[in-house]
Amino acid sequence: MSQVIEFWYEFASTYSYPAAMRIEDLACKQEITVEWKPFLLGPLLREQGFSTSPFNEQPVKGAYMWRDMERTCARLNLEFKRPDPFPQNGLHAARIATAIARNDEKAAFSRAVYLSEFAEGRSIADPDLLAELLARVTDDAAEILEKAASQQNKDLLKKNTSTASNCGFFGAPICRTPDGEIFWGNDRLEEAMDWALRCRES
Amino acid sequence: MSQVIEFWYEFASTYSYPAAMRIEDLACKQEITVEWKPFLLGPLLREQGFSTSPFNEQPVKGAYMWRDMERTCARLNLEFKRPDPFPQNGLHAARIATAIARNDEKAAFSRAVYLSEFAEGRSIADPDLLAELLARVTDDAAEILEKAASQQNKDLLKKNTSTASNCGFFGAPICRTPDGEIFWGNDRLEEAMDWALRCRES
Repeated sequence: MSQVIEFWYEFASTYSYPAAMRIEDLACKQEITVEWKPFLLGPLLREQGFSTSPFNEQPVKGAYMWRDMERTCARLNLEFKRPDPFPQNGLHAARIATAIARNDEKAAFSRAVYLSEFAEGRSIADPDLLAELLARVTDDAAEILEKAASQQNKDLLKKNTSTASNCGFFGAPICRTPDGEIFWGNDRLEEAMDWALRCRES
Repeated sequence: MSQVIEFWYEFASTYSYPAAMRIEDLACKQEITVEWKPFLLGPLLREQGFSTSPFNEQPVKGAYMWRDMERTCARLNLEFKRPDPFPQNGLHAARIATAIARNDEKAAFSRAVYLSEFAEGRSIADPDLLAELLARVTDDAAEILEKAASQQNKDLLKKNTSTASNCGFFGAPICRTPDGEIFWGNDRLEEAMDWALRCRES
C-alpha cells in the first residue's frame, strides 16, 4: 500500500522552491505519494506577530538566507534569481493551485510558478503569467481559472490555511505525515519520508 | 595540508548540542581540523531586536523546535532532556571554554557541558558543575578557572562575540570556512565540510 505525505507550501516562500522541485523524485523512490497542499503563510505570520516576511524583519538572518538559497540551488543545479519585490504576492497562484483537482497537474503548475518566480525572477502576481503557466500543464485551464475565482474556492484556501494554523505551522514548506508529525523546511524532506515509511510499517 | 573550519557555538543553543556532538567525527573523516569558537549569542540577538530566545518569543516555532530536537537527537542516538529554564545562562561556561588553550580540551569540555545541559537537564550556570566537568577533561583545571575569571579572558570572549556579530551571525551553531562563508545550524555541517574541502582544492 502506498503511503501519503502532505506537502504544504506557500508560493512566496524561498525554501519551498527547492523543496517543490525535488520532493517528487525523493517520494517516488520510496513509493510515497505526495499530496500537494498550497496554503497562505501570511495570515499565520500575522497571527504570530510579523507584518512581513521574517527575513525582511530580521535583515541579518535575511542576508544569510539569500546567500544560503544561492548555495542550496547551486547544489541542486537549480537556477536562482532573487525575486523583487520579496515576498511576492502568491494569493492568485495559491487560489489557482487550490482549484486544480488533479494532484499531478497541481504539482506541475506549482513547480512552474516556482521556476518563474525564483529561476526567472518574474512576478507571480501577474494573472497573464499564471494563465500561461496553467495552460502549459492542463487542458482545463479556462475551467480552472473560473473555479479559482469562485467564493467556494477562496473559502477552501482559507480553510486549508486555518488547518495549517491549527497544525502549528509557522513557516514553509512543511511535510506532514499520516500520524500528524510535521517537518519544516527543504532540509527535512528526507527525514519526513523516513518517518512516513515508519508509519507504513507500523 | 589539513583544512580548518571554525565551529562557533553558544552553550544555551539547542541545535549546537547535536552539532557539537557530531562535528569532530564528520571533520575527522575528511581530514578537516575543527577550531572551537565559543561566543555569546545573547548580545547579537539583543542587537537584532530580541529580548530572549527567538524560540520563546515565537512560541509556535518554539513548540516545533522542541519536537524537532527530540527527533534529531533520537536519530543521532543522543539523550535529550529539555532544559528548565530555557535558555540556560551559558556565560560562565563560555568564559571557561574561552580560557582553555588546547583545542581538544576545549572541545571535550564543551561536549561535556552540552551533555550535562541537554542530556541530563542540569544547570550549566552552576560553577561547581562546570569545575567538575573541567577537571574531567584537563589537568590544568585550577589554572584555567583562574584565567577564565580574568578581565583579559572576559575581554577576549567579548571580542570573539563582536567578531561573530561582524560576520553576520544571528544564531548558532555556525560553521565558518577559510574563505569567510558561513553555514548556520546542525543541518549545515556536511555542506560546510564540503565547502571547506573545495577551499583546500582551489
